[in-house]
Amino acid sequence: MSLYVGQTAQLSKVFASAEVAAFAELSEDRNPVHLDAGYAAQTPFKRPIVHGMLLSSLISALLGQHLPGDGTIYLGQTLKFVRPVYVGDGVTARVTVSDIRSDKPIVTLTTEVLNKEGLPCVQGEAVVRYG
Amino acid sequence: MSLYVGQTAQLSKVFASAEVAAFAELSEDRNPVHLDAGYAAQTPFKRPIVHGMLLSSLISALLGQHLPGDGTIYLGQTLKFVRPVYVGDGVTARVTVSDIRSDKPIVTLTTEVLNKEGLPCVQGEAVVRYG
Repeated sequence: MSLYVGQTAQLSKVFASAEVAAFAELSEDRNPVHLDAGYAAQTPFKRPIVHGMLLSSLISALLGQHLPGDGTIYLGQTLKFVRPVYVGDGVTARVTVSDIRSDKPIVTLTTEVLNKEGLPCVQGEAVVRYG
Repeated sequence: MSLYVGQTAQLSKVFASAEVAAFAELSEDRNPVHLDAGYAAQTPFKRPIVHGMLLSSLISALLGQHLPGDGTIYLGQTLKFVRPVYVGDGVTARVTVSDIRSDKPIVTLTTEVLNKEGLPCVQGEAVVRYG
């Protein structure tokens, strides 16, 4: 696959309460801020929020299936959780090639998950080996 | 909550093929290296491996529920995927307090996910605000 700096891919999804509850079981992360509206009302978030790792999993989906795609091996990821995403709101994950090594098939991508207003909620960088 | 450097918490789990398939649907990450033994046999991994983000979600579970626990706000996470975990194998996630800020209620923890031999598979660092 021929990659270039600036190349980008994106994916949109809504995490509704059923998805968030299913992820809570899989991950063992049953923090009530994700699951219980009454509890969330007492926190700075006021409403239930989606798990940061569930949002971030969309980045992995893009890397392995779209950019670079088939044969990608995930080496590392940084994540900053800068803004909450409320359960039921749409999000868009986006990855953009920022660096391509000339000595090895290793590429760095900026990664972000945006809320429905287009504001960044998760920001970071991925490093992958591509096949 | 009174925290100290070196304080640690851990959590063990097996991700079997049913959990990995459920996570593939939630995350949209249907990379066949996680789901298809025939495909995985053609890769360097030889057998289906668990999604790195699913492994990493155990770290979030520990932070929000155990250390620091209730009221924790996840600010950031770094992840290095240094070794695969095979579907059906047990893993242990562990978080250990490495730094406590004196000016703000912010703590840094080293985070790792170990395979059944105790070897690190995911390594990194979390930064959280605690309540």
